[in-house]
Amino acid sequence: MQKAGILGGGQLGRMLLQEAANYPVETYVLENDPDCPAAHLCHHFIKGDIRNFDDVYNFGKDLDVITIEIESVNVDALEKLAAEGRRVIPTPAALRIIKNKVSQKAFYTEHSIPTAAYRVVQSMNELQKHIGDWLPAVQKIGEGGYDGRGVQVIMSVDDAAKGFDSESVLEKKVAISKEIAVIVAVAEGGDTALYPPVEMIFDPYLNLLNFQIAPADVQQNMLWRIQAVARTVAKQLSSPGIFAVEMFISKEGELYVNETAPRVHNSGHHTIEANYSSQYDMLWRILLNYPLGNPASVESSSLVNLLGEPGHTGEVKYEGLEEVLKMENVFVHLYGKKQTKPGRKMGHVTIMSKDKQDLVHKAQQIRHALKVVAH
Amino acid sequence: MQKAGILGGGQLGRMLLQEAANYPVETYVLENDPDCPAAHLCHHFIKGDIRNFDDVYNFGKDLDVITIEIESVNVDALEKLAAEGRRVIPTPAALRIIKNKVSQKAFYTEHSIPTAAYRVVQSMNELQKHIGDWLPAVQKIGEGGYDGRGVQVIMSVDDAAKGFDSESVLEKKVAISKEIAVIVAVAEGGDTALYPPVEMIFDPYLNLLNFQIAPADVQQNMLWRIQAVARTVAKQLSSPGIFAVEMFISKEGELYVNETAPRVHNSGHHTIEANYSSQYDMLWRILLNYPLGNPASVESSSLVNLLGEPGHTGEVKYEGLEEVLKMENVFVHLYGKKQTKPGRKMGHVTIMSKDKQDLVHKAQQIRHALKVVAH
Repeated sequence: MQKAGILGGGQLGRMLLQEAANYPVETYVLENDPDCPAAHLCHHFIKGDIRNFDDVYNFGKDLDVITIEIESVNVDALEKLAAEGRRVIPTPAALRIIKNKVSQKAFYTEHSIPTAAYRVVQSMNELQKHIGDWLPAVQKIGEGGYDGRGVQVIMSVDDAAKGFDSESVLEKKVAISKEIAVIVAVAEGGDTALYPPVEMIFDPYLNLLNFQIAPADVQQNMLWRIQAVARTVAKQLSSPGIFAVEMFISKEGELYVNETAPRVHNSGHHTIEANYSSQYDMLWRILLNYPLGNPASVESSSLVNLLGEPGHTGEVKYEGLEEVLKMENVFVHLYGKKQTKPGRKMGHVTIMSKDKQDLVHKAQQIRHALKVVAH
Repeated sequence: MQKAGILGGGQLGRMLLQEAANYPVETYVLENDPDCPAAHLCHHFIKGDIRNFDDVYNFGKDLDVITIEIESVNVDALEKLAAEGRRVIPTPAALRIIKNKVSQKAFYTEHSIPTAAYRVVQSMNELQKHIGDWLPAVQKIGEGGYDGRGVQVIMSVDDAAKGFDSESVLEKKVAISKEIAVIVAVAEGGDTALYPPVEMIFDPYLNLLNFQIAPADVQQNMLWRIQAVARTVAKQLSSPGIFAVEMFISKEGELYVNETAPRVHNSGHHTIEANYSSQYDMLWRILLNYPLGNPASVESSSLVNLLGEPGHTGEVKYEGLEEVLKMENVFVHLYGKKQTKPGRKMGHVTIMSKDKQDLVHKAQQIRHALKVVAH
């Protein structure tokens, strides 16, 4: 039986482990918090720091295959593991490109992948110097941004004071008409499968996905363009794995890649129920070197993220669960986090329906009915 | 967060725990074998004997709700737990009726639920005495039969020597045209949901389900009858829980209840992919006192059980997995059992398709391609 390790023990690891039990695999998780969402669902929980070279190397050295559920891991250790013959998915090279927003942007440019115009700034000083003719802009910190942290919209010269004083990408803000994400699965031999694109609506304050429709409502020409771009990103990364390619369609009808995640992703949670092979099932197929599954959608779906309510910090309590579970074809996934805080991802709800109006209506109902609060 | 305990740690517990991670519940498993399929997927594994009064009582006394994944548990302990205010699902009373084939038959007769004609015999001596005018017959041992053990077909007077020398049901053998199973979900308040009936084909030698189609191909009148009988069984048991009602349609077109299981069941495995709310999801809704889910089928399906190959005992190896995973909309579930032996349930495969011919064809392909052997 193959031994597979996951760096990180959050909700993505949790859902990956729910699916792991279908396959012949012995599972390992490396994570500092023994109470993390994935801890009790693996065969072997190893307490350690995914950013620490020795912790990652020692975790991986006797495993057959290692994957990640978050980018902020020690890539040097993964490189050494790969050099010693461990399968590392995604490849450390792909991870290195993506992990830093500056190299990620350079990668898009190098491969003629459409992306918003940008400059690299090294400090607050440079930011102040370059912002004048570059407004409105979005500053993205080079390393360490995640889930809306490390991203700052700068609308005016005065706004620049809110910016980051470190290496970052300064992007021209695109006037967005739609946000799209495509999950791409790449097998070790190069076989590729694309999930139907999803359409997202972000909360302007927290910048966390909180409502999504799949498949996205786009015209055939745009669909082809989205698929071609997603394929190019995956192909040029030259790595097996699951990749979530996030894109914008601008008000002028241009398509831009926003960013790519080299792992299972929030924009693919609905695939658990709404697609034949979920992103989690697909990743196991890739990790264990089996043929890819079928990414086609079974039925249209929407997805609501459950975020910790503003003003609530402490031991978690869910309000309105009963009301939501009464609704037809609604699937609740709670992540088992013991503590809530404002904006923390605590779970999600997938809704299936053949009727798009029904999807939107139920998503809105759920956003109002279901609250994650503190005791 | 509620604390839920499962008596038994086999594949049913395993699949129940895969689903548990969606709900706010802390999970406990009682089982003797720390390497059992469910052991690594619960929050708390407790080593102990599910047949032992003290083990079951001590396991359950601090839990909110207790369920089973096998009938051969200590019912006295469950009765004491229920008397002390623990929620026990199914109720000990329902479990007691079902657990013994003699009382189960008496229950059907008492409630005018159609079932094959039978006599009760206490010993080999009585069996020999009664068999003459009762051939062909099926002898079912009163307590302890499971998965084909404890059932003996007796075609002739000579055959009776193969029979059991203990209290058992001696049933007139029905000439079967179809075997049907219906999963019924009953909430604590009495709300009931019926899954579409499935149609089964049994291996005549091992008596283990190895091929199933859902929904069953029956005429509308028969469907109504099947649903009415399944509902009656569940209603008369007066217990919340999941119940699998297995039935025969005779060559004469009569419907008989064969037996009922008071738990998630092999005949409901396909509901993981092929129905909106799976039997496992449904049981969590019942255990945690949430509204029932939608049992409707998403798409037709077939199900193949993976049994240990004859002649193979030892450390498990799967042959043909790659070939099967190449097939479209095929879902493999392996149970993580380390040892295989002839006829042991090692996994199952669900196939989804809109086309019934495709379901049958793929099921047959899988039966030939995928083998569970010893190293």
